[in-house]
Formats: sequence, C-alpha cells, structure tokens
Amino acid sequence: MTMSDTGLLSPVRAGTPVEVAVCDRAWLQAMLDAEAALARAQARVGSLPPAAARAITSAARSERIDPREIAVAARETANPVVPLVRALTRLVAEEDPRAAEFVHYGSTSQDILDTGAMLVSARVLRIVRADLERTAGALAKLSAEHRNTPMAGRTLALHAVPTTFGLKAAGWRQLVLDAHRRVDDVLERGLPVSLGGSAGTMAGYLEHAAPGGASAGGGLADPGVYLEALVDAYAAETGLARTALPWHALRTPQADLAGVLTFVTGALGKVAVDVQSLARTEVAEVGEPAVAGRGVSSAMPHKRNPVLSTMIRAAALQVPSLAAGLARALVSEDERSAGAWHAEWLLLRECLRLAGGAAHTAVELAEGLVVRPERMFLNLGATNGRVAGERIAAVLTPALGRARAKELLTEASLVCEETGRSLVAILADHPEVSLHLDGPTLAELSRAASCTGGAGVLVDRALGGETAHTRPLDDH
Amino acid sequence: MTMSDTGLLSPVRAGTPVEVAVCDRAWLQAMLDAEAALARAQARVGSLPPAAARAITSAARSERIDPREIAVAARETANPVVPLVRALTRLVAEEDPRAAEFVHYGSTSQDILDTGAMLVSARVLRIVRADLERTAGALAKLSAEHRNTPMAGRTLALHAVPTTFGLKAAGWRQLVLDAHRRVDDVLERGLPVSLGGSAGTMAGYLEHAAPGGASAGGGLADPGVYLEALVDAYAAETGLARTALPWHALRTPQADLAGVLTFVTGALGKVAVDVQSLARTEVAEVGEPAVAGRGVSSAMPHKRNPVLSTMIRAAALQVPSLAAGLARALVSEDERSAGAWHAEWLLLRECLRLAGGAAHTAVELAEGLVVRPERMFLNLGATNGRVAGERIAAVLTPALGRARAKELLTEASLVCEETGRSLVAILADHPEVSLHLDGPTLAELSRAASCTGGAGVLVDRALGGETAHTRPLDDH
Amino acid sequence: MTMSDTGLLSPVRAGTPVEVAVCDRAWLQAMLDAEAALARAQARVGSLPPAAARAITSAARSERIDPREIAVAARETANPVVPLVRALTRLVAEEDPRAAEFVHYGSTSQDILDTGAMLVSARVLRIVRADLERTAGALAKLSAEHRNTPMAGRTLALHAVPTTFGLKAAGWRQLVLDAHRRVDDVLERGLPVSLGGSAGTMAGYLEHAAPGGASAGGGLADPGVYLEALVDAYAAETGLARTALPWHALRTPQADLAGVLTFVTGALGKVAVDVQSLARTEVAEVGEPAVAGRGVSSAMPHKRNPVLSTMIRAAALQVPSLAAGLARALVSEDERSAGAWHAEWLLLRECLRLAGGAAHTAVELAEGLVVRPERMFLNLGATNGRVAGERIAAVLTPALGRARAKELLTEASLVCEETGRSLVAILADHPEVSLHLDGPTLAELSRAASCTGGAGVLVDRALGGETAHTRPLDDH
Amino acid sequence: MTMSDTGLLSPVRAGTPVEVAVCDRAWLQAMLDAEAALARAQARVGSLPPAAARAITSAARSERIDPREIAVAARETANPVVPLVRALTRLVAEEDPRAAEFVHYGSTSQDILDTGAMLVSARVLRIVRADLERTAGALAKLSAEHRNTPMAGRTLALHAVPTTFGLKAAGWRQLVLDAHRRVDDVLERGLPVSLGGSAGTMAGYLEHAAPGGASAGGGLADPGVYLEALVDAYAAETGLARTALPWHALRTPQADLAGVLTFVTGALGKVAVDVQSLARTEVAEVGEPAVAGRGVSSAMPHKRNPVLSTMIRAAALQVPSLAAGLARALVSEDERSAGAWHAEWLLLRECLRLAGGAAHTAVELAEGLVVRPERMFLNLGATNGRVAGERIAAVLTPALGRARAKELLTEASLVCEETGRSLVAILADHPEVSLHLDGPTLAELSRAASCTGGAGVLVDRALGGETAHTRPLDDH
Repeated sequence: MTMSDTGLLSPVRAGTPVEVAVCDRAWLQAMLDAEAALARAQARVGSLPPAAARAITSAARSERIDPREIAVAARETANPVVPLVRALTRLVAEEDPRAAEFVHYGSTSQDILDTGAMLVSARVLRIVRADLERTAGALAKLSAEHRNTPMAGRTLALHAVPTTFGLKAAGWRQLVLDAHRRVDDVLERGLPVSLGGSAGTMAGYLEHAAPGGASAGGGLADPGVYLEALVDAYAAETGLARTALPWHALRTPQADLAGVLTFVTGALGKVAVDVQSLARTEVAEVGEPAVAGRGVSSAMPHKRNPVLSTMIRAAALQVPSLAAGLARALVSEDERSAGAWHAEWLLLRECLRLAGGAAHTAVELAEGLVVRPERMFLNLGATNGRVAGERIAAVLTPALGRARAKELLTEASLVCEETGRSLVAILADHPEVSLHLDGPTLAELSRAASCTGGAGVLVDRALGGETAHTRPLDDH
Repeated sequence: MTMSDTGLLSPVRAGTPVEVAVCDRAWLQAMLDAEAALARAQARVGSLPPAAARAITSAARSERIDPREIAVAARETANPVVPLVRALTRLVAEEDPRAAEFVHYGSTSQDILDTGAMLVSARVLRIVRADLERTAGALAKLSAEHRNTPMAGRTLALHAVPTTFGLKAAGWRQLVLDAHRRVDDVLERGLPVSLGGSAGTMAGYLEHAAPGGASAGGGLADPGVYLEALVDAYAAETGLARTALPWHALRTPQADLAGVLTFVTGALGKVAVDVQSLARTEVAEVGEPAVAGRGVSSAMPHKRNPVLSTMIRAAALQVPSLAAGLARALVSEDERSAGAWHAEWLLLRECLRLAGGAAHTAVELAEGLVVRPERMFLNLGATNGRVAGERIAAVLTPALGRARAKELLTEASLVCEETGRSLVAILADHPEVSLHLDGPTLAELSRAASCTGGAGVLVDRALGGETAHTRPLDDH
Repeated sequence: MTMSDTGLLSPVRAGTPVEVAVCDRAWLQAMLDAEAALARAQARVGSLPPAAARAITSAARSERIDPREIAVAARETANPVVPLVRALTRLVAEEDPRAAEFVHYGSTSQDILDTGAMLVSARVLRIVRADLERTAGALAKLSAEHRNTPMAGRTLALHAVPTTFGLKAAGWRQLVLDAHRRVDDVLERGLPVSLGGSAGTMAGYLEHAAPGGASAGGGLADPGVYLEALVDAYAAETGLARTALPWHALRTPQADLAGVLTFVTGALGKVAVDVQSLARTEVAEVGEPAVAGRGVSSAMPHKRNPVLSTMIRAAALQVPSLAAGLARALVSEDERSAGAWHAEWLLLRECLRLAGGAAHTAVELAEGLVVRPERMFLNLGATNGRVAGERIAAVLTPALGRARAKELLTEASLVCEETGRSLVAILADHPEVSLHLDGPTLAELSRAASCTGGAGVLVDRALGGETAHTRPLDDH
Repeated sequence: MTMSDTGLLSPVRAGTPVEVAVCDRAWLQAMLDAEAALARAQARVGSLPPAAARAITSAARSERIDPREIAVAARETANPVVPLVRALTRLVAEEDPRAAEFVHYGSTSQDILDTGAMLVSARVLRIVRADLERTAGALAKLSAEHRNTPMAGRTLALHAVPTTFGLKAAGWRQLVLDAHRRVDDVLERGLPVSLGGSAGTMAGYLEHAAPGGASAGGGLADPGVYLEALVDAYAAETGLARTALPWHALRTPQADLAGVLTFVTGALGKVAVDVQSLARTEVAEVGEPAVAGRGVSSAMPHKRNPVLSTMIRAAALQVPSLAAGLARALVSEDERSAGAWHAEWLLLRECLRLAGGAAHTAVELAEGLVVRPERMFLNLGATNGRVAGERIAAVLTPALGRARAKELLTEASLVCEETGRSLVAILADHPEVSLHLDGPTLAELSRAASCTGGAGVLVDRALGGETAHTRPLDDH
C-alpha cells in the first residue's frame, strides 16, 4: 500500500522482532484480543452467552480487517475503536447474528484501546527484558575476561588515571541490569486492563450485567461483587493486571512506560557512546563485530562504520524526547482528555519500537565486541606517564606536604607535555623528588597495571565475586 | 505487509494529503529523485554522458523497489542509501550497463538522504502553507462576521471582562498568519540540496569530474568553478536552494524545520483548545461542523465529540517533543555524526506528518465552525454583571479614589457572588455609588456590548480595515 | 546581591519549604556535608586522624563561604568543587593546619558534587512525600464525603454520563498515591553516595588509605575489604545508600529522579486541570479555598483566580521538559562526561524545586477545596437528560436490538438538543419506546443518582472499604 | 539572603554579562520600566498628567524594592505584578500621592510582565548577537589561516577522507553566522510591547483614556485612533515593537525566542563537541586556550580540562529541553492561560541565561583556540594511507570498472588494517594495480594535501574570497 511505513527511516528496528509486536496489525490484533477477552470475561460472569463469546473470539482475527480502512475511518471519531467495533460486529454477524449483539458489550473505546496498548506494551517489554539479559550476560563475560586489562580512564575527554576494561564493562553491565530491573518491576507489578465504561464508572458494564440487559444494574444483588468478578475475569483472560480504579484519566501506566523506556535506551546509549569513543581511529581499543558487508560506506572502500552503536545511540537520542511527550499524558483533564489521550499512541509505539530495536542491537554489539588490550596498553603511554601523576603526588605528600606535592607534579606534567620526556625521567632528575623516591620506585609507581586502584575488586564485587583473577597484561 | 504502519495510531493525518508526501515510498522516491537529479547535474557539467543521466533518471522509479527490503538491508549500514544505490544500480544495469557505472557518481549516502529529506520537507511545507492560508481565510470571515458579537473574555479559567468573538477569531487568524509567514520564510529562503561527498570536501565529485574519471580533479583548470557549476546544476535539477558550504554536520535546515513545525502545530493547537473551551457542555458557544457520523461515541448515543479540535490538539501535544529532539541534531560531532544524523529521520517525518495533518484538519474546523452568539450573550450574564466590575471601578475612581473604588467593587462582587443579586442592583443601593451614578447609568455601563473596549477597532486593524461594521447583537 | 534569583519568576515555590532545601547555600552545605562525612568515614577506617575529621566537620559551614565567589570561580574548572575545596581547606587551616592536609583526601570533584546532590534530593523527596501524604489524606476525605454526590462525567470536553465527585476525588487520590509510592520507592531503595575517585577506580582513596599516605594502597592487606569498609562508613555518615559500583558515568539516580519528579508534578497537574475545568465560571462546581487577598487581579475587582491550581499546572508544564533533559544524563561518555554531567545540575534543582512547590501547594488546594454539590446537580441537567442516553439505550436493547436502540437514542438526542425538550419527554412520546417503557420508568432511568454505575463501590474499593455510605444528594 | 541562587550550579554563565541582564533585580527593573514607560505613553496621549508620569518614572527603581518580598507575595496571585504594583504605588505615593492614582493605569499584570520579559529578552539578544559576531570573526581568522592545513575528516567516529582545518572552522563559522542571522531577524522584526488590558480588548486603557477617567472610553471621538497612538507611544517609550493585536494568548514571541535560543546553543554546541573530539588525548589536534589555573582538576595534577567546551556543551544539552517547554506556550487557552503563561517565565530566563553564557564562553574559546597542524598531519597517517582509498578507487575505475575497483580497495584496506603495511605499498605490489599506476603516482595520490578535494575553494567561497592562499603544510 502506498501510504505505509515499513521501517525505512528507522534502521535500528527494521527486521527486528519488536516490529512484529508493534506494527499496525499487531495493534489491531491486540484491540481485537481485548474485545474477545472482554466477551469471554462477561460470559464467565454470566452477562452474555458463552456461545457469543466463542463467536466473538473466533471472529476477532486482524487478518480479516484492513488496518488502513480502520485508520482512515478513525478520523471521524478521533479513535480507531469505533470503526473497529463496526468491522468486528460485521464479521461476527456473518457467522452468528445473535452474537453480534454482544460485541463491545457495555464497553467504550478507551477500554479497548488502552487494554490493547497494554497487551502490546507487555509483549514488547518481555522481548526487551530478554535482550537486556543477554546483553548483561555478554558484558559480564567481557568484564570477567578483562578484569585486569588496564586502559586509560578518560574524564572530560582526556586521560585521567588508569582503569581496566573489566571495570568499564562491569559498569555497562550494571546500567543494563538497572534497566532490566526497571523493566522487570513494570512487568511484575503488571500492566493493567482498562475497564471503566463511558466515564469510568463502569455503568455500561453494570447495565449489561444480565444477559437480558434491561433490568441490568438495578437488579444486581451487589454491583461491587459483580464488578470485582468482571475485572478479575478480564484480567485473567488477558493476562494483564488490575488497578484499584478505572484509569482513563489516571495515566500511571503511560508515565511508567515513559520512564522505563527512557531508561532502557539511555543505558544502552551509554554503552554505544563509549564504544564509539573507544572505536575512534586514533583510539582503536574496541571494534564492532566484523560481519561481511556490515558497516560499509557508499563511497569509501576502507570504512567499517560502527553501525550497531550508531543505531543504538540514535535510538537513545530520540526516546527521551518522545517519552517526555508521553509522560505528559498524566495531565489529562476530566474523565477522558480531548487530546492528551490521543497524543499518547504514536509516542508510545515509537518508544517501544526504538527501545526494542536498541535492545536487540545491543545483544549483537555486546556479544561480538572486539577488544584490543594491546592497543589499550599502548594508548596508556600517550601521556608519557602523566596518568600516574595523581598517584605519585599522593606518595610525595607525606614528605612535601599536599600543596607542594601537587604543585610539583603540575609543573613536571607541563614539562612532560611540552618536551615529550617521560614523567618518570623528569621526576627522577628533580632534586625534591629524588630525595624521597628513586628511579625504580618511580617506574613501579607509574606502571599502569599498578595504578588501577580498586578496579579489580570492584569488578569482583559487581560480578558477585566469581571473577577468575587472571594476571594483568603488563605482567606477562 | 505485516510489518507496516498505515496511520492507525495517528488519525489526525490518516487519509490526508500529507501522507502521500511522506510515506516510505515517497521518501524512497525523493532519494531516487536526488540520485537522478545528481546524474543530470553531472551530465550538465560534462562529468558523465547525457545518455547515462537519462538512463538513471528513467530507472529511478520507486515502484520498482521494495521499501521493506531496503529498510531491512539498511541495518547493515545504518542508513538506507547503501542498499538503495545497489538496487538502483541493478535497475539501471538492466537497461544500460554502461550507465550503471555512473549511479551515485562520486557521491555519499548523506548527500542523497539529506537532499531527499529536503525534497519531502519542501513538498509538505507547501501543502501546509496552502492549508494555513485557507484556515486564515475562514477565520477572517468569522472575525468580520462577529466583529461585534460580545462574549465573555476568559482569563485563568474565569470570566474576566467582555470581549467579542470577532476579536477572538482575529487572534486565531493572527497566529495562523504568523505560522504562515514562518513557513513561507523557510520556503522562500529555500531548503538546500546536500552536496558534500564523503567528508564534506566534495573530493569525490572532483575526482569524478571528468567523464573518464582517472585524471579527475587534478586535471581541472579551476575546481572552484567546477564545483560552483555542479552545485548550481544540482539545485536547478531539484528545485532546491544551495548553501555556502556542505552541511552534513551543520544542521541548520533541521533546526529551522523543527522551529517552524512546532510553530504551526502550536498555533493550530491554540485554536483547538479554545474551541474545546467554548464547546464544553456548559458553555456551548461554538460547535464543530456537524457531519453525519462525525464525532460519534462507541457507547453514548447522544455525543458529538469535538474530534477535529481533539486531533489537532493531540498533534500540538506531540510535535514540540518530537521537534525538540530534531533540533538537537545541531550538536552533530565531526564531519558526520555517528547517531545524531540518524536520529533525525523519524522525528522529522513525524513532525511533518503531524503538522500536515493538523493543518488539513484546521481548514475543516475553521470553515465549518458553528458559532452561537445567543449562547455567548447568555453566558455573559453568568456573573450577574460582575464582568463589568473593572469598568465601573474605573468610572468611580475620579470620585472615590482608585483604592476605594476597587475595594468597593470587590466587596460588591462578593455580595453579588454570594447572593446571586445582580451587581447593578447592589451598586444602585450602595450609598457611596448612588451619589455618583444612577441606575440607568449603571445599567448602561454594564451592558456587555458597551464593555468590549477596543475589540471592534482591533478587529478592523487586524483584518486591514475591511470589516463591515455591523451592529452588535444586544442592540437588536 | 544583584546577581541572584529569589523566586520572582517561580511563585509555585516562593516561600515554600523546598526553597530552603535547594537554594545555593543548601547545595553548598550539602557538598560541605559530603566533605565532612568523607573525612569522618576515612577516620573511621583509620585513614586519617580523628582530630582532622573533627576539624574538617567543624569548619564545613556554608555560612562562612560566599556562594557567589564559588560560583564565579567555578567557571575556571567547570565545577564548583575545586574552589569549594580551596575555601574549605583555608577555613580548616585557620584552625588546624595539619588537618587541612586531609580535606578532600584522595577525592575528586564528582564524588562531592554527586553526594551533595543526593543529600539535597533525599531531603526534597522527604518533603514531597509528606506533602503527597497530606494531599492524599485530604482527597480521601473529599472522596468519602462525596461518595454519592452525582456530577457530570466529562469526556472529550462534553458531558458523557453521570459520575460522582467521590469517584473523581478517589481518582485524584489514587494518582497522588501512585506518585507517593514512586517517591517512596526511590527513598527506600536509597539515593547513593558517590565514591569513585578520579576515574571511578577508587585509586585515590586507596593511595590515601594509610594516614601516612606513602605506602598507601600497596600496603593494604586487602584493598577490597578496605574499600567496602570505606563505602560503608561514608554511607553511614551521610545517611545515603551505596551502589555496586561508582556511578560517575552510570546515571541511574538522575534518571530515577527525572522519572519520579515528572510523575509527581504530572499527578498533581491532573488534579489542577480538573479543578480548573470545574471552576470555570459556567461550571462553578468547585472553588479554590477562599483566602483574603488570594487570587486577586491587578485590574478586575471581582476576580478570585484559581491561583493554586494555576501554579501547580505551571509546574506540571515545566517539569517534563526539564526532566527529559535530566534523563539524557544516562548517555554520558567515558569515565566522566565532558558536559552531560554538568548539564544535570540546574535541571535537577529546578525539577526538585518545582515538584516541592507543587506538592506544598497541592496540600493547600486539597485541604481547602470548596465543593458545590448543588451546582453539580444543576449542571447535570444541562443536556436535558441526554446523559442518560447510554443507559436508556441499554434498557431498550433487548426489545429493539442494539443497533436500533442506539439509533433511536441518537435521533432522540438530536431532537432534544435542537428543541430543548427533555429527553424523557421525547422518548415518552415515541411509539417504539412507549411500548416498552412508561414515563415514570424513563424518569427513574434518567435520574442522575441512579446512573452513576459503580461509582460508589469503586470509591469504597479505592478507599479501602471504610467509606460511610451516605445517601445520595437527590434522594434528600 | 539564604534562599537565593547565585549561579553555583550553572558555571557557563556565572560572572558573565548576561547574568546582570536577567537576574531577579533586572526582571524587576524591566517590569518597573514597563510601568514607567506606560505612564509616560499615557501622558503623551493626554490620559494622565505629565507630572504623574515623571513621578512614576522617578520612583520606578528596583533598588528600592526587595525582590524576595515580591516573590513571596506573588504566591497569592500567581504572578509578581500584583505585589509589585502595590510596592510601586507606595513609593510613588511617598513623593506624590496624586500621581499614585495613575500607577498601572488601566493596565493588567500580563501587560507589565510580558513587556518586561521582552525588554529583558531584547537586552540579552543584543549581548548574544555581539558575542556571536566576535566568535564568527575569530573563526574566520582560524579558517583563513588554516585554509590548507590538512587533517582527517571523520565520519561515524572514523577517519573518512582528508579535509582541512580551514574548512572545519569555516563550517563552525557558518553555523555561528546562521545563529547570528536568526538572532538578528528577531531583533530586527522587533520584540513587542504588550498592551491588551484585562482580556486583550484594551478596554481598561480606553476607560482611563481621559485624565478624569469617568467619561473615558465612551467619550473618545475615535477609540481606534486613541489606541493606535497609545501603542505607538508605548513602543517608543520602551524601544520595543508593536503587534497587530494584543498577544496575551498569542505567544509568537515566546515561540520565536525558543527557536532562536535553541539554535544559538545548538550551533555553539556543535563547535564544542568538535573541539572535544579533537582535544582527546589520542587526537590532540586542538587545545583550549591555556590560562593559569584554568581546567585544573581537584585530584589530578596533570589535567587541563577543556572546560570552555564542556560548559558550552552543557548549555547546548539543556536549552533544547527548556525551549521545547517554552514553545508549548503557544497552546494557551482562552484570553489568558491558567498555567501556560506562568510556565514560561523560568524557562525563558534560563534559556536566555544559558545562551548568553554559552555565547560569552564561545568568544573565549574561538579567540584562544590552540591548533596543532603537525599533530593533524601525524594523525592523518593513522590509517596507513587508507584515507586515500576512495580517491585511488576513483582513479582505477576507468580501467577496472567501478565494482572491481571498489572491491580491490576494500580488500587492500583490510590487508592494510591487519598487517599495518601502508596501503600504497600493498597496492604497488598488486598486479591489477601496478598495470595502471606506478609507485610514485600512488604515493602522490595518497598525499593528504592532494586529497582535500574542494576544501580550499569552499573556504574561499565561505569567507568571501578573501583567504590568503598559503601553501599546504606537507609541501614545506
């Protein structure tokens, strides 16, 4: 169809599993699932004939409905449920005219669209959770393997002091686990069914409580018991959770989704910008997994672009903006907003899709990342030993006092930067230093692997103490 | 195809003309247009054979390429141009293998994608501009017609002092004209072609300057003259503008589009929230155009929802978030960003599509708006005359002093609110007032139509003095 | 001082308790608290003399330091900690020159600024939590009191079906409780101390582990045990939590704060827009607490603007934008970002301050809200009975079939709207209806209080079943 | 005062000129300027005695009013103008009780606050414009000086093909000029006075048109002429522009400011991230201006952090979020919004202040940037000649065909990357290549300076042809 989007402008998700879960047809099916589950729930509590529920369930197949027709018709009512109900009713009627009377029985558009959105969101969150788990696993492996691989720690774009690649990977993993826990929290707490009726009083459901209809709500012995049972049945039929109150204008789920999806892409975006920082031509400490044809340029034969991290970073740049718009749904006026609700749908879908694409891409990045310890070691020499400055100053402090020790190192660092001589050599010649430290001691102090502080034990702590304590690179 | 979006979650644009202009196929065609125009431009300046340019132009038809295939392949390179060039080359080669050598000749992905994006954006802006013009026209008509229709001016949710519906409509029109001018500015200044080559030096184009290729750039008498000619030809072939420098990492057009599209939806969003405020059941001063089936509820037989303003408002809620993400493209590192560029595409498309949908919807809203002067007049009485408070205080000020006049009116307003008696009656009984103003004067002072200040002349000024000065409603 | 902000442009927080907690001096004090706690923690683990820790603690008083001087000096280093350490060292040295050697011992700017930020944030969250609790309490009271107060349920700006004010207030409370739980979660999980040293390896702390300094890290039997002890001591001294790893570039706390503060203001913003919707002159169903001088206009003597809800809504409009910027901190490159970290501070402070101001203001609004059941009842009549349309259609469905029942009601509603006759009267005259329902039945069906569906039982469920089941208004 | 902000959390602006222009006292003074200008304008058109205007002008001094008192009092009315008018009235009355009657004469809070905001904004934009001009000047100098300084062009984080530093600086300048033009456009078009009265009808001004007051509006021969004259006089007295209509709820100026301030910080942010990319330890091609004490670390003696670019980038990260919130002001309901207006103030101020601080900082960065051509040249060798790959492929294309030429270069690049041999040597040994190109030709083709394509002529074009054509570095 000429009007459709197929992922052309969003490569991070094109062809990944999340697409199937959030495309228009999936959304349509989720709304149909909501209608069918509602009918079955109403049958469970005796409000409609089981046969009608079966007929509705059997007709509620998205392949029999053209999403584009629904989309265009939705302009007349500002939401797609009105034409969808019409289409579903027609399909049911073809098979069982009596059952058609029970489609969308006592219901309202928002109950269906919101329940559908929760079904879609829960499916995506489960995909994302699994991918975060795999990513964290791959990062744990990298972290353990490189527990003692020294590299430059970089702050404000410059070499600061040495760290290890193991600690860096442990940090990435930690952030991915933080994202994982937040996704898990949302799934554990449960995304809810929506069951409010026209204005959140559930009146429509009560009026349709008895299969006959007419005497309806009034005739119920205890409407509270009935509504409880109906909500329970609906939750059971959909696999979703329930809330204390109908939430047409209480957009807690949307705000939670906005928060968690921002977190997911942000956490993965951190990994991506670090990979890019380390993959720069002059740095070259890591590389993306080499795959034939991957990362080629349309012009330059020699390039292998870091495309996985590029796509993840692009997602991380988009989602916070989209999600901020989504979180604004909280400020929904009245019993149903005239616009704030409608503004959620596209934003939610894109947040889900970008997060799902980013998580899928992150698995591939983390599992295939190429790490180059030799290059890390080489780059550590880029400052001619200045990365050890903080440490040597610490050692000189008891003798010289703190201020003088720092000042002396600052001066020596400047000489080192300007002349290219090594810091150790400069300090060894310095009368104030040589009084307290001899050359071999200075050399040992500035040996990268001995400067990584608590990196190793931090990795152990983060990974749960199971790291094999391999020997550091520069001791080979 | 199962993975595609058809507008289901975005009714504001479903079925409107902007969709054709921005769907994946349109984007694909725009990139093919860019390739074809580049070939023709290179032919113009003698860098490739005219026959090759013709063959490329003739093959560059999006209906022969599956956008989904390109979308999925784009994951390998993080952009869709690499597979698109492959597909186009194949199509050209089928007809003219020699010409296939000249596809994407000396070019780079970003030149094609950015030029394509500008072609799409320019098309959408022209659609939007026309719709803003029609909207402004309809609002001018409303404004002139209701120049003297008094209604409550509302501030901080409460009746303030009277205004006229003509002034309100004139304000809407003014904002729509402001949007129109900003769209026009961008179109007049011109969205630019992108022609930078691999890293913005245009080296690839120079190397391919001579049809033979090899001796290329080196052999050009004056590369500056050549490049000028090439850019001019490319601009001419696309109908786009040119910039002083290649702009791969200078994202002025994106920032300008972000600004103007935020403005367009914001301006229309203002009209929408006002329509909703006035359409509320208790206010009922305006109504959306009545169309059979429009605005129906899935549950409530009596409702005719203000769906046009709802969809416009929903767009106005989404675009500022999306556009803020787009404007962040300015902060693009290096000669081409590893992510910031890629984050633009989806955001730009949705901003264009939502703005286009909102503008289309606004035409319908403005042209069909139902205005109810009687109801406006009725509502003006809701405060029992308190809306005239400011005016009466002004009149009493010379006699009582300003502080005392305001205090007196504040007290009288409180009595009025609590007792429901009219403010005029209360004041007429007040000894301090009755000394200075008699009943008829008080009544005249609080006559709504006489309280609308400069509303009429402001309308005249805004509409350019052409308003027919009809008599106010309550003088009938 | 001429350069300072005092709250002039942010009335929602001016004069509220949150201001004291987040002003520059509070931030300065929090960073000094971090320095002092660090010294005490280091003393606990034997790395510096207890006397030095006492001297540092005693000198760490913000009233002895000029924030403006620190602010201006911070430009040289892009953060305020460098000049702050200088100032603190000077103050300590005045009393105890030896102790001055131990200020900021082995530390780094980010450890101090981040720990300070967490101290400030935790203080604000506790204020906010208490205010949310009070607000929820007041709303529970309103909800119980008005369990059976019928009012119009409004969707897409129009009357939909009846609801009760009790259910509306229960919804507000639910959202406030959701916010409360999210604040509580963050506080329970604990905002963490920052203790990473120059590049997150804690090397500096290890180098300064022994009070002598020199032999430092190397001489520690088990650096892991030492670091654990140090972090524990630091957490104990500050009352903050600890994390698995240093988090200089793992911005989980910032992202969590962004999420929770967006939620808080969004939830309160929902209450605010509803209050405004109900306070509109034509609706007048609720009013803000009347306080002398409150809500006056500079021009209009009769106005009492809903200023509390206005200020809350203004906060709810600002925070999502600010917080989205804050959440972007997750994408922080390297071991410390050159900009993403620095972009957090102002955004975090404003989010905290606006949320704190909004929560304070919400208490006042909820506790003093004026509810007007009579007006609610009156307004329910605004549609001449059409609000009962859905219900009557439901009752007619068994007899007429669903499609015909809805169609009949749609037509009758249109007549009702156009003629102003009551829906009951129109239906009573309608042959198809009168066959099945007589006048009194119709009247009973459209009695507002009998149309509120499950509103009452929903309130009971939400409030935990403790609601007094008072009789509905129109049964009096 | 304990509650105030002094810039502690925003070093980019601490101590820069913009602070004086936007602090609370400046805002207070701007509102007082608005009141005084209004009085003088009303005096000009004969609505109040000249002596009263003089007395008001003379009393309107912010140093006589405590901003904190106004800020706290503003909570009662949700805006600071009500207490400010009270304070001003008191001050005027002390000198001239009669004149006090004419303070805020016929006016409304929003007229004063908005006019004050425009005065502040215009002042800041002029500061920003001047700083952008200086920045562009410094960048032009850098660009001309380094017209022929080759360096690696970098795309997607990797070396692409050579460019020149002159072209990079010309790009930065172009973006700064684009920002400059947008600032200039806003200033040229003019930020407007606000003059609407209570609900935008200017009724209050008409009622106070005659000095006597009472007969006021009614007695005016032509209210249109009067209002025109008043607006003209107000514009003249403030130096601001005028609009077609009062703009209380037509927030064009806010949206324009949001757009232009996003652009300014985005453009400067681009320069900042490039400086950081080039300043990285391994790259070291540029350095920030060296100033004693600048960029020091609290821990590391050897660091000189790129603090200027860090602060600019931090501003560029914050402003798009803040400005997106500001642009949302367009969607302001009714004649004055109950919240959207109030949400503007803080956002506008911070956008102005961050942009002003960033522009000030950019001047220092651009004027003092240290450029290291030798290092650029050295780094160009990092790929062992692969940066020339695109070029050599182009030269081989006529002989080998395009596909084969690219494939051959791709293979050779891979060998080059894996073995570390130079690309030229590998190709010289390749039978297919050596048939067509000999060693010296290959060497010449891969000479960096000969690969920079049109960089030089693009610089000339961008700088207006005035560049001195110095010889490229590697020809020395």
